[in-house]
Amino acid sequence: MKTESIEYRDGDVTLRGFVAFDDQTSQRRPGVLVMPEAFGLGVHAKKRAERLAALGYVAVAGDPYGNGLEVTDLQEAIKHASALRADPTKFRQRARVALDKLASLPQVDASRLAAIGYCMGGTFALELARDGAPLRGVASFHGGLETQRPAVAGQIKAKILVCHGADDPFIPPAQVNGFAEEMTKAGADWQVISYGGTVHSFTNPAADSVGNPGLAYNKLSDQRSWKAMVSFFEEIFGGA
Amino acid sequence: MKTESIEYRDGDVTLRGFVAFDDQTSQRRPGVLVMPEAFGLGVHAKKRAERLAALGYVAVAGDPYGNGLEVTDLQEAIKHASALRADPTKFRQRARVALDKLASLPQVDASRLAAIGYCMGGTFALELARDGAPLRGVASFHGGLETQRPAVAGQIKAKILVCHGADDPFIPPAQVNGFAEEMTKAGADWQVISYGGTVHSFTNPAADSVGNPGLAYNKLSDQRSWKAMVSFFEEIFGGA
Repeated sequence: MKTESIEYRDGDVTLRGFVAFDDQTSQRRPGVLVMPEAFGLGVHAKKRAERLAALGYVAVAGDPYGNGLEVTDLQEAIKHASALRADPTKFRQRARVALDKLASLPQVDASRLAAIGYCMGGTFALELARDGAPLRGVASFHGGLETQRPAVAGQIKAKILVCHGADDPFIPPAQVNGFAEEMTKAGADWQVISYGGTVHSFTNPAADSVGNPGLAYNKLSDQRSWKAMVSFFEEIFGGA
Repeated sequence: MKTESIEYRDGDVTLRGFVAFDDQTSQRRPGVLVMPEAFGLGVHAKKRAERLAALGYVAVAGDPYGNGLEVTDLQEAIKHASALRADPTKFRQRARVALDKLASLPQVDASRLAAIGYCMGGTFALELARDGAPLRGVASFHGGLETQRPAVAGQIKAKILVCHGADDPFIPPAQVNGFAEEMTKAGADWQVISYGGTVHSFTNPAADSVGNPGLAYNKLSDQRSWKAMVSFFEEIFGGA
């Protein structure tokens, strides 16, 4: 497997992402964009990209903030995320340039793309779907489900899989129900899996170190949601 | 594969179930109880039992009403189901005798049991879990999630998987949210998958013939929920 840093741009901002793929084959294959948590692009999203590459996909982990900025403090992460989310057009654009970079790679079959994301990264992936991006599927893990621009009927091309911690204090039941209504009105193909006994950041083994009880790793929900995503990708790609 | 009718009793009532298993092996293997829809034990639950047997399990499809009673009219089905559900002790007992029959079979490893069910059958399976039955797992497909006897903390031994149609008019969002609260308070290991664009009886190809728009087959949600159950069984049984 090959992994390396990749650069791409969003206007004046230089973004420093990460790509992982099997370099023992030259065959074009499906590409998966991985958008990280609000802490920025770090080891969590990069490891997921490596696991996707091991499954036969080309995976690009995107840089949300520019210059590979990564923070460890929750309040600082929220500050950066809020600034980015304030303008929904710019927010979508930040994900779209990462997707375009993925689609442009010589290893990628650009007709077979998906996006996944964690926390704010899940919101990025869902915003791409709402924007009508040419994706076969989107999977969000503990992603925020609210939007300033609800999906318009018929616009979503991607099938949607949401993996949600039922006790996530940042994403209460009303938000999940509102998302379901939005997706149904939009005519999307959607599924939401709620995991009991599970809070925010449940896929990230480092979540507990943040020191907020609303964020915690949950090994079982991490494994279950990963398996659900793998099964979802088999459905939308018919195998890598 | 061998399939045959089996008789068992609940007090004065003779129940006529159905068993399916691979008769080319004498090894004891996990047993799965399949409780049918409110129409009674018919082709739908029997076929699911056969598919479970093909996966390596011993599957018993239970008879809810006695003498293998099967009805086709929705109102008649609701009448029979309501009579059975009126007494929660008797309702649980009706599922428990079927589980006992399954556990008693010479092909079954009684330490590795699960129960699944459709519509009222899903409720049967969940009531077994609430009752503390010795099950590794329970999977409900478009099952009613309300109960007269909410689970007591620490009592549920089974892991719970609920596969739910998001547009099911018989199981509105408030009922799903209430179930989630009940399971969380009980300390259960639970997951709920909500499928968009999906109503009641989504696993049953004959649902459309009932002539009620609240019941309809949904091939994609049927396939997805079956795959989710297979994955769940791999987790709880470590392979058949």
